[in-house]
Order: sequence, then structure tokens, then C-alpha cells
Amino acid sequence: MATLPTQAAFIVKTQTVTFPALTLDCGVTLMNVDVAYETYGSLNAERTNAILILHAFSGDAHAAGISSDTGQPGWWAEMIGPGLAFDTDRYFVICSNVLGGCRGTTGPSSIDPATGEPYAMRFPVITIGDMVRLQKMLVDHLGIDRLLAVAGGSMGGMQALEWAVAFPDSVASAIPIAATARHSAQQIAFNEVGRQAIMADPDWNEGNYYHLKPPARGLAVARMVGHITFMSDASMREKFGRRLRDKDAFGFDFSVDFEVESYLRYRGSQFVNRFDANSYLYITKAMDYFDLSTGRGTIARALEKARARFLVLSFTSDWLYPTYQSLETVAALRSQNINVAFCELASSYGHDAFLVETKEESEIITGFLESVQREISTDRVASKPRPAVEEVSSRLDYAMIGEMIEPGAHVLDLGCGEGELLAWLSEHKGIHARGVEIEGEKVRRAIARGVPAFQGDIEHGLADFQDATFDYVILSQTLQEMRYPLRVLREMLRVGRHAIVAFPNFGHWSVRLSHLFSGRAPQTTLFPYNWYESPNLNFLTIDDFVSLCRQQGWEIERQIFLEHNRKVGFLGNLRAQVAVFSIRSQNASSERIHPKQ
Amino acid sequence: MATLPTQAAFIVKTQTVTFPALTLDCGVTLMNVDVAYETYGSLNAERTNAILILHAFSGDAHAAGISSDTGQPGWWAEMIGPGLAFDTDRYFVICSNVLGGCRGTTGPSSIDPATGEPYAMRFPVITIGDMVRLQKMLVDHLGIDRLLAVAGGSMGGMQALEWAVAFPDSVASAIPIAATARHSAQQIAFNEVGRQAIMADPDWNEGNYYHLKPPARGLAVARMVGHITFMSDASMREKFGRRLRDKDAFGFDFSVDFEVESYLRYRGSQFVNRFDANSYLYITKAMDYFDLSTGRGTIARALEKARARFLVLSFTSDWLYPTYQSLETVAALRSQNINVAFCELASSYGHDAFLVETKEESEIITGFLESVQREISTDRVASKPRPAVEEVSSRLDYAMIGEMIEPGAHVLDLGCGEGELLAWLSEHKGIHARGVEIEGEKVRRAIARGVPAFQGDIEHGLADFQDATFDYVILSQTLQEMRYPLRVLREMLRVGRHAIVAFPNFGHWSVRLSHLFSGRAPQTTLFPYNWYESPNLNFLTIDDFVSLCRQQGWEIERQIFLEHNRKVGFLGNLRAQVAVFSIRSQNASSERIHPKQ
Repeated sequence: MATLPTQAAFIVKTQTVTFPALTLDCGVTLMNVDVAYETYGSLNAERTNAILILHAFSGDAHAAGISSDTGQPGWWAEMIGPGLAFDTDRYFVICSNVLGGCRGTTGPSSIDPATGEPYAMRFPVITIGDMVRLQKMLVDHLGIDRLLAVAGGSMGGMQALEWAVAFPDSVASAIPIAATARHSAQQIAFNEVGRQAIMADPDWNEGNYYHLKPPARGLAVARMVGHITFMSDASMREKFGRRLRDKDAFGFDFSVDFEVESYLRYRGSQFVNRFDANSYLYITKAMDYFDLSTGRGTIARALEKARARFLVLSFTSDWLYPTYQSLETVAALRSQNINVAFCELASSYGHDAFLVETKEESEIITGFLESVQREISTDRVASKPRPAVEEVSSRLDYAMIGEMIEPGAHVLDLGCGEGELLAWLSEHKGIHARGVEIEGEKVRRAIARGVPAFQGDIEHGLADFQDATFDYVILSQTLQEMRYPLRVLREMLRVGRHAIVAFPNFGHWSVRLSHLFSGRAPQTTLFPYNWYESPNLNFLTIDDFVSLCRQQGWEIERQIFLEHNRKVGFLGNLRAQVAVFSIRSQNASSERIHPKQ
Repeated sequence: MATLPTQAAFIVKTQTVTFPALTLDCGVTLMNVDVAYETYGSLNAERTNAILILHAFSGDAHAAGISSDTGQPGWWAEMIGPGLAFDTDRYFVICSNVLGGCRGTTGPSSIDPATGEPYAMRFPVITIGDMVRLQKMLVDHLGIDRLLAVAGGSMGGMQALEWAVAFPDSVASAIPIAATARHSAQQIAFNEVGRQAIMADPDWNEGNYYHLKPPARGLAVARMVGHITFMSDASMREKFGRRLRDKDAFGFDFSVDFEVESYLRYRGSQFVNRFDANSYLYITKAMDYFDLSTGRGTIARALEKARARFLVLSFTSDWLYPTYQSLETVAALRSQNINVAFCELASSYGHDAFLVETKEESEIITGFLESVQREISTDRVASKPRPAVEEVSSRLDYAMIGEMIEPGAHVLDLGCGEGELLAWLSEHKGIHARGVEIEGEKVRRAIARGVPAFQGDIEHGLADFQDATFDYVILSQTLQEMRYPLRVLREMLRVGRHAIVAFPNFGHWSVRLSHLFSGRAPQTTLFPYNWYESPNLNFLTIDDFVSLCRQQGWEIERQIFLEHNRKVGFLGNLRAQVAVFSIRSQNASSERIHPKQ
């Protein structure tokens, strides 16, 4: 259904609502504030299925469908519609033009009711917080108490973060994509160049150009800079390379030589027709001012109040809003025990990827929204992640891990793969699941299945968690592949009350005898790799592990040894192929600090 | 000596020489071409100690010392002077302003002898090749047949590459730093934005502003964009962060809020005082046109003619001229068997690093220049890398490797560390050395010692080499740490006629007995790591290795087994702690293709 070409062919009309007054962060009160917005799908009777979509810098309210005015598809038409990620058969989707914009919502090009003239530079300087407070008025106006989700890319992601902090009780989940919790010096610098280019154009005329000609050259230069930052080095190389434009050899003049020059000049000149230069100044300023920590201490302190679940997404080649900024947000969320899934999607499209990579975004957002909806629905039975019984039921070590875990516990699975074990434990033990996995593809599938997975390196990725965040931390069949297993085990026992570790036993009699008599590198029957192709880094035995526990002062609470899918009672180190241990730190706090769900 | 504050305190004066004519790539012949240049140090009697320094986009001839005109230090004063990397006690150093510039060499602001007016936009479009041909005239004028080195960063590095290709017999070595063999779409795009910003300024007046006021606003915007690209996200974060400028809270207006805004505006406005806007247009165009392959097929084909040794340097945080571009040059050089050392220096300074990280550059360039000088000197005894006998003499496995290598052979050492073994083999066997090492710090030390080392990953880094490039490829005490040892061994046997492999034997009786009776992970006495802290990934034995050779059809030419630094004659797999093998592929070509030295 998601692939039918007709799906976007619903006609939409932008509507406008006017609010009498909006008091801004700068202290000024704006009167008669218009908001242009569109809605798609239907609000359910309980008013619990509303999703607010937040647009980026130069976007507008027309996010989906076909505009009845222009005949153009919405800017996120591949994401919003019947059967799509933001499924208008299930959800009621809203999108509004931001405050300060030039596409129907009040901005510097709007008529100032006090003078009857455009505000121009008399428009007050606005913030992302101001934009969000105006959106809240719209959402209230539509009769919605709590949004199922707020979602957007770039500046839209900043608004999503601000929503979760400013109106914690009104947001069940937030999806900031390719965004940041605070604008960096480099981001401010690029915006400042754009502003200076506009203000250097004599036609800008201190902003008073509405009855004259607009500062087209300055605005075009500003947009050209912007376009470079939206793409990536790689995507520009793929799209343009060093190809010449309509010529076989260099022109040896200053007309267009290269395709990329032609593209930038075209994009710059086109932008002048659809965007207001003063809106450029005001909206970039709002982005530059954005810092979630302003007036709230730190980003972590700001997020302390949030009641939403989060899905944070970034893209590998996005250098304008790089992944480290998303990880800064994720670290702050984890430090507050807030439920956050994170994935860095692979793309060569740079920052534009959030508009382009709709297939990957759709898979992950569809599953995430379903899990949020299940969670807030009254039907608790439906709130489990989609189980994967067939993948798990044949794994006795999974069953053994299940034996060691109390029902309803908070569980972190390190190297969670596609979330099979966590989904199975959710189904059978009603646990609260979290997963860490390094492979992006697997993280995507885990999140799509409804398991809150975090893309990261086990060996470094637990530092953000506070002590004793989880009841159980699981490391299944991964210890032998760890470069620094001791560090990982210590971290497990710090963030969890119990650590459950399953590993292949290289002390099995067959391994040892074969090593003695064959004089060849150790292999096990379960992991029968040749030495030159084995993923195993550590050839530890049960006795090695027990000895380490003793040396580190860890208490072994329970141990289960398996041979041929049967439990082994004695002589474990000789007989077991796989061992499952539950251990705890002897000085561990018994106090439980649980993640917010 | 290099740290004395007085070292740069020599006074220099820019000189000018005028050449009657220069024919350009565009077909135009420029008449009466001035070249502004400076020299430091003295030309030796053999005229073999001259080094040409090539400046970047906005640089000039004043590279070192204190200008007698302005009292200012040169732009690379920390690199050029008595006892510095470009040691004026040893070398005769030249730097000239580029063609098209505005600092003494003929450019668009110069008087056109045909009209008596500034050329302005009637100046012909120039190329990097044109700049280099003019520099060649200068070098000829100074009576120098062959330069010891050409060196420069950014656009200076492009000139260095062009020099090595255009005048192969005139360059003994080339040091392109933070450069590229061809401008990318992104690099062209940033330059095009700068040009459009200048040309959008009404004061530009089609270039005819020399008797009026210059296009200061456009040029300032262009420079602001440039400054962002010269820095890195990290360096801007460190230098400015979100600090406000002279205020405690946002101004809620469009004056300066942030430090970074103030910095960019200042840099932009300063630039107008020292640089000509038309030169900006012409020089950026020359960079954009630069592609070493133009008219020469590919970059590799272009470099085929080069007779120079190369030292290629890049910086981790340089996103304007990223490391992959330097690696593109290096790959082309290696495919032509040209002697190239490469190192990616760690820096947070972005592209500016080539001007800032003078300490790291100095260490590596000092050693490189010494090795080039030793090589071209008639005294062959002095041409060996500095040996490190004390580090090597105690290593019997090194001696054994030495036993297997013919004198004068071409040897590649994988995981060469600081080049100890290669230096020792050069000293004792007169070999031609090359090294690969992943750790930048070690690569720096190896190059500083005179060993041509290449920073790269052994498991992926040999692909650029043609088949049978080397007589011997060495892998010493590293096989057990390889993730994909089979792939590495195959590559060794492709690029080398013989592979010499030394590794610790996990088949030693003590390892096996201990594994049997203790039930603990295997350890050796030479590498006695606990399982949870071992760097070893593979626990192979001599029998494992022999079996692999048989399976792959590799011929074992020689094997030496060592126990307690003594050779072991029989029962090697039980008794040897370390094994050294020399193997060859049975279908290997006996033809030798040697690197150019």
C-alpha cells in the first residue's frame, strides 16, 4: 500500500487561524497572530492519535498531499499519507508554518496591525520557544490535550526537543531527526554569513524593500551557502563531480564552467521567488539562539522534565547537524533514564537526507509510533513488542537467561541484534526492554519491532547511564568477541544490579584434547571457526570466568552449563559448551533506579 | 635551537624580477610579467640545496623572517629559518607570490602595459600550471637546475604536485600538504559562492573599481565563508563555543550576539585591506580548474612521469581538503611505484592546521629532507636511514628475518612501527625500505628517521600496489593480531615475491599442557596476557600455519624456530616460542617490478 503512486493524491488546503496575542521571549507581545496549518487524517474520539509535524528552516505548512492552491506535493509527502510512516489512516497529522515565516504565519513580511505596513525589521526577534508556544495554541485550538508524537528534521527537530521540555505533559513521544539541542559555533557562523550576504545587498535597504525590489543577489548568495551545507562532499561528487555545463572545455572566463556552479546559481535565484529575505534573518537568528539548556542549567537538566519517549535519528554524511550532536541529546536523555531509541542511518545525502531517505525513516518511525501507541492505549496486552518466538524458542541459552530474570524487570541487552531476545522476554516475562547494538541495520529492525534500541559500541556506550539503572544487564554470546571484556563487565555491574553473561566454553574437554594432540588453535563445536577467520578474540573457559569473578569480588548468584542443549550438573569446565552466569557486585546498591517508560 | 625566540628575527626584503613574456594555458601571452620573491639562506656551490616554498590562496612571497617593509613575520616563519624544518643554515629557500596575485606578482590589479590601466577583468584566466611555469622561470633565473624540494599547503600543495609532473627532472622531492590532485565539486562550490558574493556587490562594477571604492561588502562575505571552511567544527567550538560578545544575554537584535559573529565580521573586513577582489576571482578560478589528470588521462598517468620522492601530509580535522584527497594522490603514486611517505597528522585546527601544527610538520619534514639530501648526495654511505641498533640487536627474530633477505632488495614491512627493523635492514643489508603502520605517531617517527612510511591499515592498505612490487614483504609478530590474516597473507604474496612471517607459536608444549590441565585460556611466555586484556586475536600454532600454506598452495622456502633466543631443530610446534617463515606463491611471477627510488 505504501508504494501505490496514488497515495499522495489527496488534495489539501492550507487553513489559517488567528490568535489574539502571543508574548515572546524577548518581552514583546505580538497581536493578531496568524497561523497557517494543514491537517491530514482524522482525530479519533479519544483525541489520542494526533501527531504534530515540524518543518525545517525554509519549509511551510504544506507537508503532505497535493495543495489545492499550487498543485504541488507536500515537502514530506513520502512520509505522511495513507499507509505511510505517519499513517493518515491511523493518525491525525498536523503541520503549521512557523512564527516568523513567510508562508501564511505571521512574520516580518506580515502587516503590523499597529501601522498598516509590513513589520519588516520592526518585527521582534523570535526564538524556537516562541514558535513552539504558538504551535501549542494551535494544538489547544484543535482540542488536543496530548500529542502522540512531535516530529521533524533539522529546525523541526529542535522544535520537537523544545516541545518535550516546554510542554512535557502534552507530548507522548518526540522524534528529532538530524537536529541538535543547541546550535554550534559553526552553525551560527554559516547563518551569520547568510545574514551578512543579505544585509550587504543595497536592495535590502534596512529591511524596507516590500514596496521596492527584494535583495535578490544577497538572498541568492545566502541560499547558495546553505545548499552546500545541506549536501555532503560525497553527494556533490556523485551528483556533479567536475562535469562541465554545456561545454567540452574550460571557458577561461567567469560564466558558468561547472555543473555545480550552474546548480548553485539556479537554486539561489529560485529561492528568491519563494522566500522572504527578512524571514531568512529572523528564522536563522531563532536557530542560533536555540540552546535547550538556556535558563535550565544543562541539556540534561532541561530534559529532566520530559515525559516523552524519544526516537533520535541522524545521518552518517550530515556534517551540518552531525551525529555527535544527536548523541549529545541521547546522552542527556540516558543520564535522566528517559526511554530513548537512537539510530544513525547510512546516507550519502548529507543534511538533506532527512528529506530524501524516507524509506529507512519510514521503517523505523512506523514501528516506533506503533510501540508508542500500544503503550498509551488502555489495552495493556497489545503493548508488547512484536515477539519473534520462532527465532528464540530453539535457543536454550535464551531460555536459561529467561529463567534468571524476574518478571517485570528493567533489562538492558548488550549486543541486542534485532531485538529477538528482548522481544521474547517482553512477551514471556513482561520486562521493560532496552537494547544496545552496533550495527545500524539491526538497530533499525529492533526499533521497527518496537524494542527501544540504541546504536552504539558496547565497549564505550554505557557511560551515560547512571549507576543501577537496570535490574539486569545481559551479554549473550558476545564476551568472547570483546576487545576489553573486563571493562564491559565492570560497566554492566555498575549500570545493572545483576549481570547475565552467556559465553562458549573453550575449556570443554574436546577443545582441550584437540589442542593438546593436534597442536592446532582451539575451536569449539558451537563456534567451529578456523583461526584465520574466527570472530572470537578471547578463548576463555568457565574456570577463567569464575577466577575473574573471584579476583574482582563479584558474587556468582547462579550458573547454568549446557552441553548439546541439555544442562550439565558437574565438571562444567570440562563438559559444558555454553555457560550462563548471573553475577552481581558485592558492594552493589540494592536500590533500584528505573528508567522512565 | 628551534625554540629560540630570536630565530625568526632575520630581516628580509621582497625582490622583484620581470620576465618578458609568459604564454598561458588559455592561449594568451602576458607581457612584462613581474614576480615578487624572497630568498632565505645560501645556495651551495653545487646548487643542490634549493627548496621552493609555495603559498596558499591568500599568501604571498613573505614566507619567513621579518619584512623590512612591514616589520611583519612571514606566514610560515615557524617552519623556515636557521635550525627550523626548512633549515636556512642548510638549505636555500625561495618563495614567490603567485601569478594572478596582488602582492607584487603580476595580476588583475597590475597595470596592463598595452593600456596603461589596471588589467581588471581583462586579465586572462590563469591556471595552477601557469603559476608553476612562471615559478620555473624564477628558478631558472636563480641558476637552479634541480630543486631539492617543492613544498606547500593547500593551493601550495597543488602547485607542488603540478611541479613534480610538469618539470619531473627539476624536482628531487615534493611535499604537498593538505592538498588535492583535483578540486572537488564541494571545493568549487565554496569558491563559486565567494565569487558570486563579490560579483553581487554593486561596487565590484564589473571589476572596474581601482579608481573607485572596492567591493568591500562582497569580498568580506566571501572571506567569511572562507574562514568557516579553514577552521573545523571542533576548533570553532573550542575557540568560540556559544560565548556572547560583550554581553550577558541575547540582544534580540541583529547586531553582534556571539563571539563567532564578531570574529567573522572582523576577519571579513580586515581582508578587504590586504587583498584584491579581482585576484580573489582569478585565483579561486585557477584552483577550481586544477585537475592533475587534465590532458594526462588519469592522476596516476599524470604522476607516471614524476621523478620526485613524495611526502604527503593531511590533517584529521581538515574537511576542506580532507584526507581522502591526499590518499587519492598517494594511491596514484603507489600504483606507479613512486616512493611516497604519507601521514595524517592529528589536529583539531581544520585546514588551518598546515599553518598551525608546525611542530609536528617540522619533525617529519626535517627527517624527510635529510633523507632526500642523503639520497641525492654522492656520498652513498650517508644515504641510509638513521639506524636504531640498540632497539634491534637484542631481537633474534629480527636477525632471522635479516638472514632471509638478500642485500639490496626492495622490502615492505607491514606494521613497521617506528621503522626500527627497516632502518636496521637498510644499515646491514642495504635494502630499499618501505613501511606501513597504522599509528600516526609511529609513522611520524619512522619518516623522521628517514624510513618512507605510509600511514594505513595493513588489512586494507596494500590494494594500491601493483603485483610483485617488492622482493620481500614482512609481517613480524602481527599475524596473531590480524582480524583477517588470510586476506593479509594473500595480499603479501601478491605485492611481494616472498612473504616473511614471524609469529608466536601457541602450539608450544607449555601452552598446550597448561590449557589441558588448568582449563584456562592459552597464554605464551612471550605474550603472557590474561584472556581479558590480550591484544591477540588468533591463537595459531606452527602446524596451523604450515597447514594453511599447504591448503593455499604456498611454498615454504625457509622456516626458523626459536626458543629462548636459540634456534630449535626439531619438534618445532612443541618447542618453538616464535616461528619465522619465508613463503612464496607457487604461481608467483619471477619478474621484479621495483619501486622508483
